Amino acid sequence: MLSLIGSGIGRGIAIGKAYVLKSTDIEPPFLRIKPDKVEIEVERFLQAVVDAEQEYQALLNNLDTSAPKESAAFINAHMLMLRDPLLINESIQIMRSELVNAEYALQTQSNNLIKVFEQMEDTYLREKKVDVKHITDRLLRHLMGIVSHTLDEFNTEDLSGKIIVGKDLTPAETMFVRGRKIVAFVTDLGSQISHTAIVARSLKLPAVVGLHGSSKYILEDDLLIVDGLRGIVLINPSDQVLKEYRGKARRLREREKQLSTLIRRRTKTLDDERVHLMANIETAKELREVKRVNAEGIGLYRTEYLFMNRDTAPTENEQFRDYKKIVTRVERPVVIRTLDVGGDKQLGFGYPNKSSSESPLGLRAIRLCLNHIDLFKPQLRAILRASAYGKISILIPMVSNVDEINQVLTIIKHTKAELKAEGIAFDRRIKIGGMIEVPAAAIMADVFAQKLDFLSIGTNDLIQYTLAIDRVDDAVNYLYDPTHPAVLQLIKMVIRAGEKAGIPVSLCGEMAGNDRYTRLLLGLGLRRFSMDATYLLNVKQQIMSVDTTKLRYLVGKVINADSTIEARDYLSKLNTL
Amino acid sequence: MLSLIGSGIGRGIAIGKAYVLKSTDIEPPFLRIKPDKVEIEVERFLQAVVDAEQEYQALLNNLDTSAPKESAAFINAHMLMLRDPLLINESIQIMRSELVNAEYALQTQSNNLIKVFEQMEDTYLREKKVDVKHITDRLLRHLMGIVSHTLDEFNTEDLSGKIIVGKDLTPAETMFVRGRKIVAFVTDLGSQISHTAIVARSLKLPAVVGLHGSSKYILEDDLLIVDGLRGIVLINPSDQVLKEYRGKARRLREREKQLSTLIRRRTKTLDDERVHLMANIETAKELREVKRVNAEGIGLYRTEYLFMNRDTAPTENEQFRDYKKIVTRVERPVVIRTLDVGGDKQLGFGYPNKSSSESPLGLRAIRLCLNHIDLFKPQLRAILRASAYGKISILIPMVSNVDEINQVLTIIKHTKAELKAEGIAFDRRIKIGGMIEVPAAAIMADVFAQKLDFLSIGTNDLIQYTLAIDRVDDAVNYLYDPTHPAVLQLIKMVIRAGEKAGIPVSLCGEMAGNDRYTRLLLGLGLRRFSMDATYLLNVKQQIMSVDTTKLRYLVGKVINADSTIEARDYLSKLNTL
Repeated sequence: MLSLIGSGIGRGIAIGKAYVLKSTDIEPPFLRIKPDKVEIEVERFLQAVVDAEQEYQALLNNLDTSAPKESAAFINAHMLMLRDPLLINESIQIMRSELVNAEYALQTQSNNLIKVFEQMEDTYLREKKVDVKHITDRLLRHLMGIVSHTLDEFNTEDLSGKIIVGKDLTPAETMFVRGRKIVAFVTDLGSQISHTAIVARSLKLPAVVGLHGSSKYILEDDLLIVDGLRGIVLINPSDQVLKEYRGKARRLREREKQLSTLIRRRTKTLDDERVHLMANIETAKELREVKRVNAEGIGLYRTEYLFMNRDTAPTENEQFRDYKKIVTRVERPVVIRTLDVGGDKQLGFGYPNKSSSESPLGLRAIRLCLNHIDLFKPQLRAILRASAYGKISILIPMVSNVDEINQVLTIIKHTKAELKAEGIAFDRRIKIGGMIEVPAAAIMADVFAQKLDFLSIGTNDLIQYTLAIDRVDDAVNYLYDPTHPAVLQLIKMVIRAGEKAGIPVSLCGEMAGNDRYTRLLLGLGLRRFSMDATYLLNVKQQIMSVDTTKLRYLVGKVINADSTIEARDYLSKLNTL
Repeated sequence: MLSLIGSGIGRGIAIGKAYVLKSTDIEPPFLRIKPDKVEIEVERFLQAVVDAEQEYQALLNNLDTSAPKESAAFINAHMLMLRDPLLINESIQIMRSELVNAEYALQTQSNNLIKVFEQMEDTYLREKKVDVKHITDRLLRHLMGIVSHTLDEFNTEDLSGKIIVGKDLTPAETMFVRGRKIVAFVTDLGSQISHTAIVARSLKLPAVVGLHGSSKYILEDDLLIVDGLRGIVLINPSDQVLKEYRGKARRLREREKQLSTLIRRRTKTLDDERVHLMANIETAKELREVKRVNAEGIGLYRTEYLFMNRDTAPTENEQFRDYKKIVTRVERPVVIRTLDVGGDKQLGFGYPNKSSSESPLGLRAIRLCLNHIDLFKPQLRAILRASAYGKISILIPMVSNVDEINQVLTIIKHTKAELKAEGIAFDRRIKIGGMIEVPAAAIMADVFAQKLDFLSIGTNDLIQYTLAIDRVDDAVNYLYDPTHPAVLQLIKMVIRAGEKAGIPVSLCGEMAGNDRYTRLLLGLGLRRFSMDATYLLNVKQQIMSVDTTKLRYLVGKVINADSTIEARDYLSKLNTL
């Protein structure tokens, strides 16, 4: 039995058969064809068209109820296009006139067509290019004999109970996983904060990501155990192991049930310290779980999703409607973080511009926003307008010096003045906070706390920069250590700065949701946690079973440990106190 | 008059005509040629061959004394190859049989030949592929009508008095700039620590790098003023400006003369605080300047150059000879930093392997060495062996946790035991220090100081990580601020940790050589500076003209400044005290 270790997502255990996605990048070859062989090549091409047609027909026939409703219409449209002389006959024409192979001719004509469609005025026709791409892709697969799964809209196979295995899920693919009764994800790339991880969480599925070579070791239909909590994938386990894990999975479900008894209880420690538990969200889709676990509010609404996978920025009104929806639905305080793109999160419409690197040390977050007021201002207006409909605060990501804070405060002041002049309602006393995720910000927390209404510690980036470790980089992932004494000292420094200034400090990185660190963070003085709602009850249980007065000694030991192993030992002791 | 601002290198001012390098990347087009047009294409190809031949002949005739000696032999060899049927006739064959254009056919055949040469057993023949590449490149330029300068071995133009302007100098190009009497460099890319900057320093030339668009604004033969100290390039200045700058340049030269009176004097402040000034070097070539300015030793020998631009790692003996040469020539203490590659410095022989990103947060420096003991061990052995010939210390770059230090100390201990068993001499009490360049290391300096014999602050990276700014990234360069209070606090923390533990702390980043920061660093308690030798006397003068007891108030003001502008104001006051 082979086992693979990666980054675990979710707290559950899934058992199921592997459904292996193949890489979707197809590189059509270029070959020159002798004049007397061209007709053979044309024959091969026409056969691929027939094969694709039959495949579409089979898809239509087997279309089951779990498939999206538009599928049949889509398939019919594609079948029509398969007979379109603009694509088929013209490709054959290219093969004959230029003496080239079918793949190359098809790709050439497909690119020509896409260019034509792109120039269309009509939005509907412009979208036709997507169909052309799909059909080209499918024909190329037939021509090149590539057998593969993709999760596009024409994949109507029954995926219920399956575990999706792939290099990484593309944003497009993740659109087609909802409602398919998949039980887990396993990917080669990615981290706790990658796209696949976020999708897995929103579907409440376990996943293991960042597993180099998983798609090499795992074959279609292999039986897998995916342990999201420990980040382990077991391939074709023995009956004994399978039995064990079925037991574990059952106990986990029981635990979930037991945890749900905590939902209505007030969060406090044994020594009566009040602790606040809030939720991080990306989209309104997650609100149901937020309400189920009775989070005290949204501690971090990441607004990036509104801006990604589209050709233009969302308008002020579009954003306003979204923020208003969130705050009215959740009926509790919402902290909206302003746009945190740049670095590895690039927008489709030119921000940051190409000249900037994708380095995590680049033009990101508030830096980018201050350089692109046209992007920042509508968001601030939208947030301010929404603040008339519920308790909203503004969180500024990645501040690293006082000048940036001064600039942001000035821009917000001006924006408020504008809205006032326009007679538009907003919360005049809206709170403005700073995300502490750059080491300089943590060191400067005392000064920042004088200027801001609250601080929020973003441990994912703070750890990354403090240790100079790119967490997404497998080669150094082993050095990523939330219990590194330097990290703990910075966290402590920020909490103290907040206490001194009398402003709230919350922690919204992955660390907040991992119950291994709950006691440690309580011991450092943290009283506000914001995390993925999935983890909230688990953390709540930890909090409600601990006496903070007894934590000091071991927390000091963890901070002053002489090695990583020693720190882990003390952490274990702390957690079994 | 247009002026451009970038990162300045060197303290001089150069005035001269621009010599614009064009990008060396050529993308040959692919075209299909109608059968009846092929012979016209063949004609065009043969004409390019004739043109290239004439060009080589002209080069031979004009070969001047400043050109490297091997040039004539090289040119003759290339002219012979231009008549080689394997390249020329076969390319024509491809054009005729496959009905393709000359550029494509040439590139195809060139690639074929290169592959054949690469498989040769004989080293001499294997190197032929370089010639094939050169000729292909030259023919492609003729075919495509690209007019451009490159600095390769056949550029024999008179460059004396010229200012080289380009996107960036490739390592190959920098090999051909020595002895050409160039007066300055101006590049679009790069930073203080990039390749071009290092070459400029070793040639003692001013340069301005990281000037986006310089090659767009500067035309061949434009008159330029390059101000290395202020990082400014002026294009076609007025006579008035030219006169001013000529005056400035003269005053600078006078100042250099005046500074040279300091060379033999002991470095101490007015209040008799002893300060140690050491030099940073990359190669033995810089030792002459090190000795001229009478540096107290080498505070940082970067060993990367030994490993770069080659196909295999240098052997232990190769390294030993190099380290021995340095320490015996300089006759003073030498701090050798172990290999600091990874990130943007990739080796040609597979370290770090491809799977690792080029992120500055990746598998770099000691992380890489601990993962590749086969690379690390021979270097340690070589350094230890050289330590028998002079005072050598070992500096470990990028340590970020105690485990790494423990591992390194163990490996060194074992290596010493090996050498002892082999009866090889080395300094048994060789000092081992850590480079403090990751925020975590600065925060942990107290603990690190207990384990190590000395600390060396690498401000370039420390600033980069603390502020989460990639200095090489133009988009955020404006945020790179050595006087950021968080940076100064970390520096202070490290100096205090050294004092407490009774071990020396030096600072070897760019900050050490910039006399704007000399008083600030003295005020923070720094007494050991290591810098490019070019800057040493300038810093020395600053030190010898200041009373450290008077610095405290203003240094405190800089650290606690409320904005960047305020910090700069106090810094100016400090510098004019």
